[in-house]
Amino acid sequence: MWRDLAPVGRSAASGGYFRQPFGSAERECQAWFLEQCAARDLDVRTDGNGNTVAWWHPHPAAFSIVHEDRVAGSADQGSDLRGLSVEGGVVTGSHLDSVLDGGAYDGPLGVVSALAAVDLLRERGIRPGRPIGVATFAEEEGSRFGLACLGSRLLTGATTPEQARELRDRDGVPLLDAMAGAGVEPDLGRSSLLDGIDCFVELHVEQGRDLVHRDAPVGVASEIWPHGRYRFDFTGEANHAGSTRMEDRHDPMLTYATTVLTANEQARVLGQRATFGRVEAVPNGTNAVPSRVTAWLDARAETDAALADLVAGIDRLARERADRDGTGLAVTAESVSGAVGFAPDLAERIVAGRDWPVIPTQAGHDAGVLSAAGIPSAMLFVRNPTGVSHSPAESAGVEDCLAGVEALADVLAGLAR
Amino acid sequence: MWRDLAPVGRSAASGGYFRQPFGSAERECQAWFLEQCAARDLDVRTDGNGNTVAWWHPHPAAFSIVHEDRVAGSADQGSDLRGLSVEGGVVTGSHLDSVLDGGAYDGPLGVVSALAAVDLLRERGIRPGRPIGVATFAEEEGSRFGLACLGSRLLTGATTPEQARELRDRDGVPLLDAMAGAGVEPDLGRSSLLDGIDCFVELHVEQGRDLVHRDAPVGVASEIWPHGRYRFDFTGEANHAGSTRMEDRHDPMLTYATTVLTANEQARVLGQRATFGRVEAVPNGTNAVPSRVTAWLDARAETDAALADLVAGIDRLARERADRDGTGLAVTAESVSGAVGFAPDLAERIVAGRDWPVIPTQAGHDAGVLSAAGIPSAMLFVRNPTGVSHSPAESAGVEDCLAGVEALADVLAGLAR
Repeated sequence: MWRDLAPVGRSAASGGYFRQPFGSAERECQAWFLEQCAARDLDVRTDGNGNTVAWWHPHPAAFSIVHEDRVAGSADQGSDLRGLSVEGGVVTGSHLDSVLDGGAYDGPLGVVSALAAVDLLRERGIRPGRPIGVATFAEEEGSRFGLACLGSRLLTGATTPEQARELRDRDGVPLLDAMAGAGVEPDLGRSSLLDGIDCFVELHVEQGRDLVHRDAPVGVASEIWPHGRYRFDFTGEANHAGSTRMEDRHDPMLTYATTVLTANEQARVLGQRATFGRVEAVPNGTNAVPSRVTAWLDARAETDAALADLVAGIDRLARERADRDGTGLAVTAESVSGAVGFAPDLAERIVAGRDWPVIPTQAGHDAGVLSAAGIPSAMLFVRNPTGVSHSPAESAGVEDCLAGVEALADVLAGLAR
Repeated sequence: MWRDLAPVGRSAASGGYFRQPFGSAERECQAWFLEQCAARDLDVRTDGNGNTVAWWHPHPAAFSIVHEDRVAGSADQGSDLRGLSVEGGVVTGSHLDSVLDGGAYDGPLGVVSALAAVDLLRERGIRPGRPIGVATFAEEEGSRFGLACLGSRLLTGATTPEQARELRDRDGVPLLDAMAGAGVEPDLGRSSLLDGIDCFVELHVEQGRDLVHRDAPVGVASEIWPHGRYRFDFTGEANHAGSTRMEDRHDPMLTYATTVLTANEQARVLGQRATFGRVEAVPNGTNAVPSRVTAWLDARAETDAALADLVAGIDRLARERADRDGTGLAVTAESVSGAVGFAPDLAERIVAGRDWPVIPTQAGHDAGVLSAAGIPSAMLFVRNPTGVSHSPAESAGVEDCLAGVEALADVLAGLAR
């Protein structure tokens, strides 16, 4: 399976992946996923947000009391249950989109491991007592429409259809047009997929080196840090880069540069995270003082209050510099996700009797969105030797990936008993 | 004429102009220019660099001794001289391309004033003793291919055809393809247009407020400051903006930000100019520490040595920060133009008996390239009340523009006597 996906959306130059949601590479991954589900006789359900859950229905014997008349004589995979409503499902999976020039593992490892875990359970002769679902969620990275976990947020109502309809990508393409262009008939908002999900376990490559330090191939998540994205619009006055005296300028690039350094210092001092990774200057000409610099702050902290403090501190120092530069500054929170503590019961059940470390994560995930919506959720992490993520240098060893599949299969077997 | 050009390539949103060389708006301006030349029965000559000179040939009486047999009975405008080689021409003109979101005057004012000056001389019944040429030069701003005054540099050999063939725009389009796509058959390098140019006078909107302070509608240039464009490639390590500790990063955005502030401080202290107006981050994602930030420094100083010192100082401080950030830095000089002192004889002749101030300019011009190539050149400036340039706020009053036309006509009449 890994070999199938390896070339899809990969840049020969950098070795990184460009799988933007509803773009051709991500759609190719999704088509591949549907083929894999069909080959396993899974019952594929999709929604109008671009999400998919492929169900392995329970063995007839396990619920013969309820559905005896209908399922008698059905195949092991419950083909005859297609179209029936699903209840009490144990769901795993992740996403197939990537950031721009991202790694191979972030997302796809969770999807491929979910399919491999189903295979492993079947090899073991396990007959689940509850439906097991393999999910892919749309636009998890937020790298196209700017809102991370868009698919799961729409599914759970954390983002409203009205909000989503306003979203546009860098080229001005509205979300609905991008979906329609990719063959997804848009029907935004809470969908019946949600009704079937009783609990959710997402396997993911680790995005740091905690497991390296703890010498463990697999770990379990305790919580996700709060996370926000803020657009900073610095406005000044376009002018000639040669003939305008330095003293006469209102140069928003100066305010931006100071803000980059301020954000870094603040986050470093406080043990938090603050990053300006995206910037756009207007008119972006070598010989013109810019009229506008727009940049996006990605900020994360241990608690909601700490995140608010971090951003307020950066905002205040940025405005002080803007006053000196004679520039303007508008800050817009594009998305803010509160702290997510995963279900402690579920994590305890998962680690019971095992030596898997329990670690926090600073990255957002669909599991966090489902957890915030009241669905008991958990995450398994697979060791990443480089600790690098959102980059071609992201890594995971084959043995660790196989340990991840085994761990996920064990967890699913326990939950779907 | 001004009304004809006003809507071409204008952004309704900003009011600024987008007339990229060999793009549709600039081509429309050029087509308009050729129509104007035809309406005046000027003899249009073009070259394979995208440059044009439209000649008003001398009145037959003025050179009847040389060409008597050929021109006897020819029209006043010398129609019968088309195709003959031109010698000893007095040339004026400027360029029709703009920076991204530029002003209306930078370039077109010089072209329109040149045509208007021809009209005025004819109204006055002047019969020039030497050819008078109206020129447009290609890609003066360097806003598409990164090399300012590309057309005049190719014409004079300051840039070689080999260098120009390597040039590509932001979308990777090679210069030759852009030219061919615009209907210009490329034949790069020194052309016969140069042979006809004995001296050159460019009229230009002022790009500062010297003339405002001196209360003069028109001024004459003494010199152009040295000017360089340098590409700074800051390289780091892409990583996840959430899960990567601040201490573990190699973030090139930090090195860039420090360099922006350093450049500003250095130039301010020394009374020079240094600007970072163009920046591109890779992958330019909100939740990714960038792997690369590329930015362009525009630097200008009073002397060649001062420019070298300024850039060396910025380079040194940028490398110190790169060492701290664990990032890499490569600096490439994309173009460096030495100081240009305009022909003092010519300037003296122009201002003789007039109260036009003589002022330096920090902006590069085709007149500077021709001057460096040994062609006596001069510049007339028209007052700009805002002093702003390369921006929609660039300005010039109608009366001052008419004063500019009158001044240019006087200069041409004197030189072509």
